[in-house]
Amino acid sequence: MIPITTIERLANHVGETVTLRGWVHNKSSKGKLHFVQLRDGSGYVQCVVFKGDVSEELFEAIGHAGQESSLVLTGLVKAEPRAPGGFEIGVKAGDVLQKVEGFPITPKEHGPDFLLSHRHLWLRSKRPWAVMRIRDCVISAIRRFYDEQGFVCVDSPIFTPAACEGTSTLFEVNYFDDEKAYLTQSGQLYAEATAMALGKVYCFGPTFRAEKSKTRRHLTEFWMLEPEIAYATLDDVMQNAEELLCYVVKSVLERRQTELEVLERDLTKLHSITAPFPRLSYDDAHALLEKAAPGQHKYGDDFGAPDETILSNAYDRPVMVHRYPKEVKAFYMKRDAADPTKALCVDVLAPEGIGEIIGGSQREDDLELLLGRIKEHQLPEEAFAWYLDLRRYGSVPHGGFGLGLERTVAWICGLEHVREASPFPRMMYRIYP
Amino acid sequence: MIPITTIERLANHVGETVTLRGWVHNKSSKGKLHFVQLRDGSGYVQCVVFKGDVSEELFEAIGHAGQESSLVLTGLVKAEPRAPGGFEIGVKAGDVLQKVEGFPITPKEHGPDFLLSHRHLWLRSKRPWAVMRIRDCVISAIRRFYDEQGFVCVDSPIFTPAACEGTSTLFEVNYFDDEKAYLTQSGQLYAEATAMALGKVYCFGPTFRAEKSKTRRHLTEFWMLEPEIAYATLDDVMQNAEELLCYVVKSVLERRQTELEVLERDLTKLHSITAPFPRLSYDDAHALLEKAAPGQHKYGDDFGAPDETILSNAYDRPVMVHRYPKEVKAFYMKRDAADPTKALCVDVLAPEGIGEIIGGSQREDDLELLLGRIKEHQLPEEAFAWYLDLRRYGSVPHGGFGLGLERTVAWICGLEHVREASPFPRMMYRIYP
Repeated sequence: MIPITTIERLANHVGETVTLRGWVHNKSSKGKLHFVQLRDGSGYVQCVVFKGDVSEELFEAIGHAGQESSLVLTGLVKAEPRAPGGFEIGVKAGDVLQKVEGFPITPKEHGPDFLLSHRHLWLRSKRPWAVMRIRDCVISAIRRFYDEQGFVCVDSPIFTPAACEGTSTLFEVNYFDDEKAYLTQSGQLYAEATAMALGKVYCFGPTFRAEKSKTRRHLTEFWMLEPEIAYATLDDVMQNAEELLCYVVKSVLERRQTELEVLERDLTKLHSITAPFPRLSYDDAHALLEKAAPGQHKYGDDFGAPDETILSNAYDRPVMVHRYPKEVKAFYMKRDAADPTKALCVDVLAPEGIGEIIGGSQREDDLELLLGRIKEHQLPEEAFAWYLDLRRYGSVPHGGFGLGLERTVAWICGLEHVREASPFPRMMYRIYP
Repeated sequence: MIPITTIERLANHVGETVTLRGWVHNKSSKGKLHFVQLRDGSGYVQCVVFKGDVSEELFEAIGHAGQESSLVLTGLVKAEPRAPGGFEIGVKAGDVLQKVEGFPITPKEHGPDFLLSHRHLWLRSKRPWAVMRIRDCVISAIRRFYDEQGFVCVDSPIFTPAACEGTSTLFEVNYFDDEKAYLTQSGQLYAEATAMALGKVYCFGPTFRAEKSKTRRHLTEFWMLEPEIAYATLDDVMQNAEELLCYVVKSVLERRQTELEVLERDLTKLHSITAPFPRLSYDDAHALLEKAAPGQHKYGDDFGAPDETILSNAYDRPVMVHRYPKEVKAFYMKRDAADPTKALCVDVLAPEGIGEIIGGSQREDDLELLLGRIKEHQLPEEAFAWYLDLRRYGSVPHGGFGLGLERTVAWICGLEHVREASPFPRMMYRIYP
């Protein structure tokens, strides 16, 4: 029996006859020859159809099969170093399942709005294909990294009764009987509860921000990884983030070479992602900015996008900016004992001007201080009653961070816009398809 | 320097002095001895504190440390076959970080409502701890299974413009500018699009059902795995589901022995989960029911909970019921060419009366038939325009299934109620904590 295989696995079948099942990605014909660039989701391969080798019917059918026609091809696998991917199929038999004409997305340029409206079809193009396979690799590397270290994946809930970081950017849901629920902006508070139960945990799921911003860095729905570690200090958190990013980039370099080539990614940029990453205090970062763009950044303020660009371009690897003024950071962050005006926090800025991909901190573990800050920020105390319990019953030093998946993928892939890193991006004016 | 380690890794440190960081799970004292059952999230271990071995202060402090007090203990690791876990710590030094009195969840019985309202603390109890670690193992086994087979994880969106299977059980979200969005009930339709782009895919994320049911099998928010395979038939789908379940159960048996013991799980029930699973047509299933409980099931109807219980108790492993009457199944399922009154679908019922954990099918790949069915079901055609494109441009046979994570975990753990399989279960009247 002729084995059915995938393009990804052709190396195991050189000299054999196999069956591939896929779609016409591209086609050209020359007299008695059709050259079909076949895609099957796992890769792309050139299939040569010589009129003398196949039935007249099949030769004819392939001649009329336009882009995205579905077909099954059986043929001999040859090593062909000049061919993209290194193999070529000498077709002997096959079947065109559906002849397609007029596939909407052609090799010509299309505007972003047209492509986004056809995202379900656009995903079949080479670039989105490569991005989605790298995204998959990033996800599985992240999970493997934590699995290997004995972290436990505990998913935080999506429906929450209250906001983690203010209420202005929350999506409201009509729950039962006119009750309201809100979509989570971050699983962190819940991850803190599970870290107290399971030690080292992570959650990794979709999060939601109803931000009215239309920048190339924002989505209303994005996936976030949030590890949380009992007994961790800020230094532990920074080390974990550093190790994670190195592990993920290494995994992509090893397992997604073809895809990085499709994206024409400059690999030297990725090869330089090794520990140690530069660690820069907020004060040092401000000093660096003053030198590069005098007067642009006001001491005490958070960094804006232009500031992040300068900081992230100053290094060839992610830079960890730590100890921001407490005023610009969240209520749950612990103060630095050495300088109580600062929070024990870290933002990791990816290189090449991508900006923040990680935000983390050591958490405030003192009940009274935390309670004071909830009052100070005028947050609804009763909504945080359960959270305060964590400081009432066996409080310990702990910390963690949040990593935005799509921003991380955008950085690794070298994408202009974060929306390309999401399979079906949701933005302010887009929830279709 | 004394190494800091976790209880899970004590086997590597027998005869050494190590530091553990955790919480008092239980404690008893007898004259000059304290016996602390320490938990650190990775496991439980007995720590023996002899008055002569430690400072007076520490001995005193441990004496006053109630359940869930946080503490760091340094001591000698001894192999102790009689101790649960097989090790014991001879404490030499340490520190009580926070002394706790009156932890709300004591070894005595608490009602389910009390426990659910204290879920953030209840997770520290032994049973929830074991369930969450098994849940983590199930998640990572599922992802490993698909990674190893070259599937690509592509997440389906949570915000959707329309319903996949009717609108009555949809949660509505206030999107921007008075626009409405809906929370996904299933990622399948999107997974079909990505399968056409990437071949073999899966999505695995939270899904939402606004069902007004308060049974022990329902949550309003639950995680669902949905593999989707281009060029797959119903038989391929069934085989994939069977292999997955065997793989997952085997992984839990190998990696979560301690946790299964905590749950007092009957392991013989899990050891019998091997291929092949019984495959039963709807007609055969009806005949079986007629014999077991004459008149209970009306031919043509879907199976109710009592029917599922009988069917699932009839076998020692999951039973695959296939080819239901098309009327009781979704519009997107392909008809059986051998009997067009039937859909090419399968439900997998877990044993021990758990009921359905998987629902899958081969999908209708013919544009006209699918369009006809969308009209027949009076579904909004324009909302499915993109979905119909998948049949317009290179349609191929394909299929997949959805597996409910919490039900699967409930089955493997032997839980009465699916809510125990969710870290923070959401139900009709519960979104707190």
